[in-house]
Amino acid sequence: MKKTPLHVVEDTIARIEPLNQEAIQAAEDHLNALTKPPGSLGKLEAIARQAAGITGELAADLTGRAVIVMAGDHGVCEEGVSAFPQEVTPQMVMNFLSGGAAVNVLARQTGTHLFCVDIGVAAELTHDSLLSRKVRPGTGNIAREAAMSREEALQAIAVGIELVHELADRGYRMFATGEMGIGNTTASAAICVALVGMTADEAVGLGTGINEERRRHKVEIVQRALDTNQPSAADPIDVLAKVGGLEIAGLVGVILGSAARRRLVVIDGFISTAAALVAARLAPEAIPYMIGSHLSHEQGHSKLLAAVGLSPMIHMDMRLGEGTGAVLGFHFIDAALHIMREMATFESAGVSKG
Amino acid sequence: MKKTPLHVVEDTIARIEPLNQEAIQAAEDHLNALTKPPGSLGKLEAIARQAAGITGELAADLTGRAVIVMAGDHGVCEEGVSAFPQEVTPQMVMNFLSGGAAVNVLARQTGTHLFCVDIGVAAELTHDSLLSRKVRPGTGNIAREAAMSREEALQAIAVGIELVHELADRGYRMFATGEMGIGNTTASAAICVALVGMTADEAVGLGTGINEERRRHKVEIVQRALDTNQPSAADPIDVLAKVGGLEIAGLVGVILGSAARRRLVVIDGFISTAAALVAARLAPEAIPYMIGSHLSHEQGHSKLLAAVGLSPMIHMDMRLGEGTGAVLGFHFIDAALHIMREMATFESAGVSKG
Repeated sequence: MKKTPLHVVEDTIARIEPLNQEAIQAAEDHLNALTKPPGSLGKLEAIARQAAGITGELAADLTGRAVIVMAGDHGVCEEGVSAFPQEVTPQMVMNFLSGGAAVNVLARQTGTHLFCVDIGVAAELTHDSLLSRKVRPGTGNIAREAAMSREEALQAIAVGIELVHELADRGYRMFATGEMGIGNTTASAAICVALVGMTADEAVGLGTGINEERRRHKVEIVQRALDTNQPSAADPIDVLAKVGGLEIAGLVGVILGSAARRRLVVIDGFISTAAALVAARLAPEAIPYMIGSHLSHEQGHSKLLAAVGLSPMIHMDMRLGEGTGAVLGFHFIDAALHIMREMATFESAGVSKG
Repeated sequence: MKKTPLHVVEDTIARIEPLNQEAIQAAEDHLNALTKPPGSLGKLEAIARQAAGITGELAADLTGRAVIVMAGDHGVCEEGVSAFPQEVTPQMVMNFLSGGAAVNVLARQTGTHLFCVDIGVAAELTHDSLLSRKVRPGTGNIAREAAMSREEALQAIAVGIELVHELADRGYRMFATGEMGIGNTTASAAICVALVGMTADEAVGLGTGINEERRRHKVEIVQRALDTNQPSAADPIDVLAKVGGLEIAGLVGVILGSAARRRLVVIDGFISTAAALVAARLAPEAIPYMIGSHLSHEQGHSKLLAAVGLSPMIHMDMRLGEGTGAVLGFHFIDAALHIMREMATFESAGVSKG
C-alpha cells in the first residue's frame, strides 16, 4: 500500500538524526592543528565542522551536488502584485531547461546539476528534462481563498521528499534550493507575517522590481490574505496551505528530505528561506542540516534568516531567487573542504604556535 | 638613468586613466537584455560593469590571475602586541612557498598563482620561488620611532609597482592583495587613526587572537605610535613611513600599479584595506580599479572599507589575511563574467519583459 503524503512527511521527520558530535570534534581538532590562528577562517571553519557532523567524514567528497528548482504559479497574481506577468513562470521553466537562466550559469560554475520540477505551474509543459510532478495548476488567490488544501500542501512536501530520496540514491550528496513562481514573494511575505510575527509592511519588499506605490498595494494584499485565511501560527502546514505556494511546499520537502538523508542543504534567498522556516517549525532537528547562503536585497530576508537561525555568507544585494545565491554558496563549502584536505599543520610546516 | 622610487610612484599615478564609460554602458545594456529583472543580480552586475570599464571588453578573459603576498616584519612586536612571536613571519613565508597555507589552498581553488615577496622580513630567507625584494629587515618600533624613512616607503611602493608591471607583461590580468607580517594589525590600526580619524580604541581589534586585556595594551601602543611620530593626515606617504609597514607599502604599490596597468585588483582584509586607503588618498583615480572582497572580523574593518568606498561581498567572519578573502572574491568575478557570456536574453529565450 502506498504511503499517504502525511505518512511520508511524518516518517521523514522521524528519521532526522542529530549531527555526529565525534566527527564535529575531530574536525575541530584538525582545524586547530592547521597553520592559522584558531578560528581565524570564521564561517569556513563552521562549515567544515557542520559537513563533518552531517557526513561523519573529516572532509567528505561533496562533488555530487544538485540545485532543485521548484516551479509553481500563484493565483494572487491577479491582484497585480508582481512586476512580471504570470506567463513568465512557464517561460522561465523552459529557460532553465535549455540552460540559459542565471541559475544555470552559476550552477555550471560549481559543477552543479539542475533539476527543474513543475510542481504547480498554471500551464501545460512538456520537456524531456522537466520533472512533471504537478499537484495542481497554480494556487488559489490567497487574497480571497486558501492557496491550496492541507492535503495538497502535504502532497507537495512529499514531492520534494521523494525527489531527494531519488537523487540521494543516485549519489547526490549536497543540495541547493531554488524556485520560480511569479507572485511568490507575496506568499513568502505572508508566511513571514504568520510565522515570524513581522508586520506585512516589514515583510513585503520590491520583489522583481515594483515601485513603492505597488509595494503599498502588495502590503494590503498580504494583510488581506492573512485576514481572509486566518492561518494558525502553531500549525506550519496550515500556514503553508492557506497562504503559501506549491513550490514553497516542495522546497519544505527538499529540506526535510535532505535532513533525513543526512545531506547538506544550502538555502537560497527570501522564498527558499520561507520554506526553510516552515521546515524548521515542523522539525527543528532539520536546522543543523541547513546552511544559509546569501542575504537578499528583499527587505524581510534578514529577519527571516534570523528566525530560522541562519547566517548568510554572501552580501551581493541579489534578489533573483532561482537558487542563484545557494549555488554560489557551494564555492564556500568547497573552500572549507579544500582547507580540511590541503592545509599544512603547525607541525608539518614547522610554524610556531601562539 | 634608473628612475628614483619617487619618480616611479609619480609616473604610475599619472598613468592611471578613468574607466571606459562606453564599455560600461555596453555592459549595462547587455545585462538589461538578460532573462532576469533589471539589477536583480546586484553586485554581480556591478562587477560586470566594472570589469568592462577596466578592460574595455564586454566579458574579458581574466583567467590569468595572481595573488601577491607581501611579507614584512614589525619592530613594534617587541611591545607584545601580537598573539604570535615574530619568527612566525619567516616560517609562514616558507609555508606559502611550499603551498601549505590557507591562501595557497584557496588560490588553487580559483586557479590563482601565488607570488610571495620578501619586502621586509627580519630574517634571511632563500627559496627558488621567493621574490627577494627586501627594502630593510623589518620596520622600526613605531611606539618609539618611525617605521621607516620616507625614501624606504617610496622604495617599498616601487617594489609593488614593478612587480605588477612584470606580471602584467607576463599576461596576468587580475590581482589580489595578500600579506604576512606579525604585528601588522597594529600598524594598520595606526594608519586608520591617522587617515580615517577613528579613535585607537575603534581601530584596534583582536588581531590573530589576543584577549581584551592585551587589546587595551595594543590601543595604548597605537596611541603612543601616533603621539611619538605625529604623522600628517594630509600626506599619506608620511603616514605610511611613520606608522605603516613594508608589506603595506608594497601593497600600495600593487594597487597603484594595477590601476596604472588597467588591472582589476581585489582587496583582502584589514591590512590590505589599510594599503588601499593609502593608495586611494595618493590617487583617488585608482579606486575604480579596486573591488572589496570580504568583511573581516577585525573590528575596524567596516569603517576602513567605507573610507575607501568599498563594499564587501563576503561576510565569513574571517580574520586571517594572507589574501584569503581576496582570492575567494575571484569566484564572484568569474560568476559575473560567466553571466555576461552565458545567459540567455529575453529575446533569445522568448521570455516576456515586465
